[in-house]
Amino acid sequence: MPQFKLVYFDFNGGRGEPARLAMHIGDIKFEDFRFTFDQFPEVKKTTPLGQVPTLFIDGKQITQGNAINRYIGKIAGLYPKDPMQALLCDEIMGALEDVTNKLVGTFGLEGDALKQAREELAAGPITQYLEWIADRLAEQGGEYFVGDTLSIADLKVFSWIEGLNSGWLDHISTSLVKEVAPTLQAHCGRVAQLPKIASYYASRQV
Amino acid sequence: MPQFKLVYFDFNGGRGEPARLAMHIGDIKFEDFRFTFDQFPEVKKTTPLGQVPTLFIDGKQITQGNAINRYIGKIAGLYPKDPMQALLCDEIMGALEDVTNKLVGTFGLEGDALKQAREELAAGPITQYLEWIADRLAEQGGEYFVGDTLSIADLKVFSWIEGLNSGWLDHISTSLVKEVAPTLQAHCGRVAQLPKIASYYASRQV
Repeated sequence: MPQFKLVYFDFNGGRGEPARLAMHIGDIKFEDFRFTFDQFPEVKKTTPLGQVPTLFIDGKQITQGNAINRYIGKIAGLYPKDPMQALLCDEIMGALEDVTNKLVGTFGLEGDALKQAREELAAGPITQYLEWIADRLAEQGGEYFVGDTLSIADLKVFSWIEGLNSGWLDHISTSLVKEVAPTLQAHCGRVAQLPKIASYYASRQV
Repeated sequence: MPQFKLVYFDFNGGRGEPARLAMHIGDIKFEDFRFTFDQFPEVKKTTPLGQVPTLFIDGKQITQGNAINRYIGKIAGLYPKDPMQALLCDEIMGALEDVTNKLVGTFGLEGDALKQAREELAAGPITQYLEWIADRLAEQGGEYFVGDTLSIADLKVFSWIEGLNSGWLDHISTSLVKEVAPTLQAHCGRVAQLPKIASYYASRQV
């Protein structure tokens, strides 16, 4: 196995979290390089395109979160081999990038401008995406996003839903997911209770 | 093989073009459903998340351009099986989505606002991405983006470069690529001369 170093913000969420979780589930050793938001301007200069997460593989730095998710997913046994199932996995992960970009577009706004932008997102695109993602989950039987086993798509949705529910995003109600997409709320709870996920987050609280 | 229908704008470029090209290269039969820009508001209503391209597979409509590219790439023999090579392919495709999003953000602007936004993009992110993509090409030996054979990443870069060179994007100089990233200009020329690509575009001019 190559030497891995994942570079991302020091919080339990965001674009870096699915790969972190996948590596813990797959027992893949890696350096979990975390930095504070204040340190980002310095870290940014060292990345290929000014973005995180990045993944060093034997010293070569790779950018693009979903590319990293997919690669780690493959070596952790969390990415489907079947092209149609892989397509469904990729579709969910790509859609979450799009709606995340919309949220990131509100970072830096303040006061009434932030409130208005976030409320419009919550009522508009976030609700639309939650409903669509819930439909895709239902089409797959309701337990996982691809077939009958956990995949990197489940981890990406889990991490996004946890973010929406966290209260960290001002003007996004922490009950939005429960109200709009209760099956995604239930999915999130099931993923959180997987032994490897539960023990990982327990270890982070020590 | 399933029945395929690709839904995208009626022009030779944009997010739908790599999958079209890959299907022609792989001799994969599909319905090439094209619509005009004026028709988009109506088409939009029929898509999962208001975006194109979409791909119908035996009647099921899938969204997300790069997810579609990757799936078609696999069945056309244009996507690497090796996880590390696939990662490099995905990294390029993901990065191109990001810079495309920046360009799409200028659609709808007019006059001086459009001029300023486009000039800032050309001097800033587009140049940055061109240089980085050229570096990645050089790291792979300079001919293709992944290993020594054509992949869906080459088709995505080709299609993007053709767009930048087309003159269709006001205030983006048609000599920008040649000046900033001559190796990408050369790559674009080589891809255009591949027999399947050349014959396809010749057939479109009839």
